[in-house]
Amino acid sequence: MSKLVIVGTVAFDAIETPFGKTDKILGGAATFIGLAASQFNVDSAVVSIVGGDFPQEYLDLLSDRGVDITGVEIVKEGKTFFWSGKYHNDMNSRDTLVTELNVLADFNPKVPEAYKDAEIVMLGNLHPSVQMSVLKQMSNKPKLAILDTMNFWMDIALPELKEVIAKVDVITINDEEARQLTGEYSLVVAARKIHDMGPKYVVIKKGEHGALLFHDDSVFYAPALPLEEVFDPTGAGDTFAGGFAGYLAKTEDVSFENMKNAVIYGSTLASFCVEKFGTERMIDLKHNEVHRRLKQFKDLTQFEIELT
Amino acid sequence: MSKLVIVGTVAFDAIETPFGKTDKILGGAATFIGLAASQFNVDSAVVSIVGGDFPQEYLDLLSDRGVDITGVEIVKEGKTFFWSGKYHNDMNSRDTLVTELNVLADFNPKVPEAYKDAEIVMLGNLHPSVQMSVLKQMSNKPKLAILDTMNFWMDIALPELKEVIAKVDVITINDEEARQLTGEYSLVVAARKIHDMGPKYVVIKKGEHGALLFHDDSVFYAPALPLEEVFDPTGAGDTFAGGFAGYLAKTEDVSFENMKNAVIYGSTLASFCVEKFGTERMIDLKHNEVHRRLKQFKDLTQFEIELT
Repeated sequence: MSKLVIVGTVAFDAIETPFGKTDKILGGAATFIGLAASQFNVDSAVVSIVGGDFPQEYLDLLSDRGVDITGVEIVKEGKTFFWSGKYHNDMNSRDTLVTELNVLADFNPKVPEAYKDAEIVMLGNLHPSVQMSVLKQMSNKPKLAILDTMNFWMDIALPELKEVIAKVDVITINDEEARQLTGEYSLVVAARKIHDMGPKYVVIKKGEHGALLFHDDSVFYAPALPLEEVFDPTGAGDTFAGGFAGYLAKTEDVSFENMKNAVIYGSTLASFCVEKFGTERMIDLKHNEVHRRLKQFKDLTQFEIELT
Repeated sequence: MSKLVIVGTVAFDAIETPFGKTDKILGGAATFIGLAASQFNVDSAVVSIVGGDFPQEYLDLLSDRGVDITGVEIVKEGKTFFWSGKYHNDMNSRDTLVTELNVLADFNPKVPEAYKDAEIVMLGNLHPSVQMSVLKQMSNKPKLAILDTMNFWMDIALPELKEVIAKVDVITINDEEARQLTGEYSLVVAARKIHDMGPKYVVIKKGEHGALLFHDDSVFYAPALPLEEVFDPTGAGDTFAGGFAGYLAKTEDVSFENMKNAVIYGSTLASFCVEKFGTERMIDLKHNEVHRRLKQFKDLTQFEIELT
């Protein structure tokens, strides 16, 4: 089993959807990634920062699931990163209401000694210079470095973002971001341009329409499970990334064929994440539920045309 | 092999896309459906109407491929239905520039005697009362009646449309139309409501995001093949329907399992249709090209997770 290092936010979220609204609840990219990866019982560690206002019980949720949190810096006199957003009726778009960086403004990530030789590095959505700092702290070149990012960094830190992109093996972004990054509407052409920037594997997330995995001239399409109801999309992309990274860490096989399975696991876990507010569904998620839904994914996509 | 009756428009289209524009070229729902179905060498007939201005060579394109055109009425003194549209840059939306109904305004479909016992009826996008007239002319209840329609008929002829919907086994509509017809945003809930209106099978077309097939509590998701370039989406939905109906006519198996294959064939043929203007790509399409692309579809979606 490979070791997995995760860098990203551990935060407070306040969310409003057509179904209701929350006060400050547990959120953050690294939280969702860590919870998803913990489904695979891999040896993982989160590198992040929180303030003195962050409840110990939230950190315990991660450590209770085997996620090492010695790399989560606690700034006693500081306040935790806070994000608040409101989803539109179609649940596909949202407005950010509040972003308080707080302790995240001066985040200087420190990878724990025991994880500097981790084979898999998952760079959650954060300033690209923070992501780069984590990569540079690794004592060996990781077997697989995975980058998640978003349009915000393309707008304000494109040169730094391109430097990190050049250093990673896999990038996960959504369709609009792939188009923004490359100036290409066709996702096939966009993926090829992103390949040329560095990553050998490009995962394009399309929300309710699933996810595409590109590698050289090959492509794999994992549809999203059609759901009766999407309750709260927050964290779905991070959960996808955590499932993807966690599965690869567990199986120690970073071939394209096995990455297809990783995409299916990521999609499966993300389909649970959106069923409740925040991390609620991921926290009580049982292995047998995951197993049942994987079977649904198989039924959803597999067909039996004989090709002679 | 089952007999297949197709009703729909045979028409002139003039198309403008970001890649160019055409004069009046061959178009119409029944044309695209017939060309797609002809890939399966099934015994099919088109029921439609054209004016004296319609070139014989366009009709020959169908009959040369084994499609019976004795049900295509030619009104010598009339003009053929003409549609003109312009696609936006994203190719997902379009404006209709011209709609001249011409002979279609008084279309009274006549199913040829030899096809009144056809096992499969494909009702292409047309006024629902015309679709109903074809259903009523069938001497036996067809093994499978498939309905294609669009938002336009929901706007101006909803009661008649609902009557036809109640009589068919399969409906194919796009995601926005499914939402309009049911008032439900979730496609899972929308499909369930459409089941309750009559059709045991609901196919929801999502364009570049693929197609969903719903049946009772089961669902199958055929992604669209990611393409470098969509040149002209005109006729893609009809081509999908023609591939779907043609495959079912050929295999004579209308089970849910086989319908999955029909959806894959429909998607495969539609992926060719959009590569050139109008019917151009469908007319020169070779069996071995279809075969190769089916294999691509298999590679695109099949994965090997062991579920114990």
